[in-house]
Amino acid sequence: MSFYYTRIVHFQDTDAAGVVYFANVLAFCHEAYEASLVKFGINLKVFFSSQEVAIPIIHADVYFRCPMFCGDELIIELMPKSWGDDEFEIFYQVFLNEVEEKWVARANTKHVCIHPRSRSRQNLSDEMRRWLLSFESS
Amino acid sequence: MSFYYTRIVHFQDTDAAGVVYFANVLAFCHEAYEASLVKFGINLKVFFSSQEVAIPIIHADVYFRCPMFCGDELIIELMPKSWGDDEFEIFYQVFLNEVEEKWVARANTKHVCIHPRSRSRQNLSDEMRRWLLSFESS
Amino acid sequence: MSFYYTRIVHFQDTDAAGVVYFANVLAFCHEAYEASLVKFGINLKVFFSSQEVAIPIIHADVYFRCPMFCGDELIIELMPKSWGDDEFEIFYQVFLNEVEEKWVARANTKHVCIHPRSRSRQNLSDEMRRWLLSFESS
Amino acid sequence: MSFYYTRIVHFQDTDAAGVVYFANVLAFCHEAYEASLVKFGINLKVFFSSQEVAIPIIHADVYFRCPMFCGDELIIELMPKSWGDDEFEIFYQVFLNEVEEKWVARANTKHVCIHPRSRSRQNLSDEMRRWLLSFESS
Repeated sequence: MSFYYTRIVHFQDTDAAGVVYFANVLAFCHEAYEASLVKFGINLKVFFSSQEVAIPIIHADVYFRCPMFCGDELIIELMPKSWGDDEFEIFYQVFLNEVEEKWVARANTKHVCIHPRSRSRQNLSDEMRRWLLSFESS
Repeated sequence: MSFYYTRIVHFQDTDAAGVVYFANVLAFCHEAYEASLVKFGINLKVFFSSQEVAIPIIHADVYFRCPMFCGDELIIELMPKSWGDDEFEIFYQVFLNEVEEKWVARANTKHVCIHPRSRSRQNLSDEMRRWLLSFESS
Repeated sequence: MSFYYTRIVHFQDTDAAGVVYFANVLAFCHEAYEASLVKFGINLKVFFSSQEVAIPIIHADVYFRCPMFCGDELIIELMPKSWGDDEFEIFYQVFLNEVEEKWVARANTKHVCIHPRSRSRQNLSDEMRRWLLSFESS
Repeated sequence: MSFYYTRIVHFQDTDAAGVVYFANVLAFCHEAYEASLVKFGINLKVFFSSQEVAIPIIHADVYFRCPMFCGDELIIELMPKSWGDDEFEIFYQVFLNEVEEKWVARANTKHVCIHPRSRSRQNLSDEMRRWLLSFESS
């Protein structure tokens, strides 16, 4: 089961080549992740500034097939996958709303759960496990 | 008559002080401007990369009353005002959806219509005049 | 006495109109502020994430005279001005290195010293007073 | 032979978790690429907005080992590698100036030379071939 997030390309997202600046596509994907957490009932302000637990990204990857332009309506599909007790990965496919069959970009991000100060690993919270599980149901 | 744009604060919009980075609020306002143009039927890709006409911002101003946090739902009110044939100004009020009575930020941007190469002034297109007029009806 | 900061325009700073996105110029000015604090011996990591004191911007203003392009070398002049015990303002002039006589953008930011949690005002630290004073010597 | 680019972490680069927002590290790497082109004598304004040739990124990858904070001085090592006549890849290592031995992030970007309108492939210019060759000399 996937989560879908819709995002219009803003003028600020573009660069002087007239298309979306490459690194911004990863930010679009992160917005989809945030929207998915919100839909699950997670408070983003608390989630991202906790002194007890952080889930930083340790790896990100992005492929581009087509340029994206200002005003384009993107649909981002998000599919998380659990890796043990303290890690997960998220796969993203970015589609243009007008041409839904073909993806224009694909990305993935790998997240590890740590203590923000010591940076040592810790297990994901029950809430995050439930969020991950919610994608496994068919 | 005003146009209203809703915008969730993303993680990327924030800074290490835990709140929205000040200059990003002007970008939120510009998004409201873009959304208003789209609703009026204007193609943003063509509008912002035209070789014939550009409407750059020559002045921007922003006041902050309250901090904005990741996950906050903002409502941005946009009210343009015409200044002669080649200029207009846009006033913005940013509200938190939860506390609608009080604005958290106010901004305005002044736009001048020019030839992109010569940078000399030219009159606004009929389309932009109609966009401006659409806000004057009661 | 002024502080000068040099900044190359990056590709990411530009938009599909081929020039620097307007709100990014305020971010360039904030970089000049940061560079000036660093030169004065202030640790930015501590300064911007303190739980005891914050100095948020409550107003920002920016004028644009000329477009800035990718690769342009900007020189930003910074001149702070004290306003009582808990406020200050910074004036910025942005010059193109090649044509130094004329500014291409002018900005100012107004900063107020507060407690980050209560958001009530407090006096600026001795360190920040000394930073402000350092600009008054001729 | 490598190219080295020094970059201070700005306040705007950070997020509410107190560290550099992940996708911004790819933008730092792109800045290193731009600085390397400038040093080679390439005009960035012409390079990035040409109507005849574009070299978009088709893949990007980034690993994070340590968080980066506001004020950190980063040193980015850039090593391009040629792939035939119309492609190249760039490898980046990001170091903290204070602890130079260990990288804090590693990235790579893959670039393909195309016609901006048709998006069909074309050979890299002689200038870009010379830029690539300049890294192969020992």
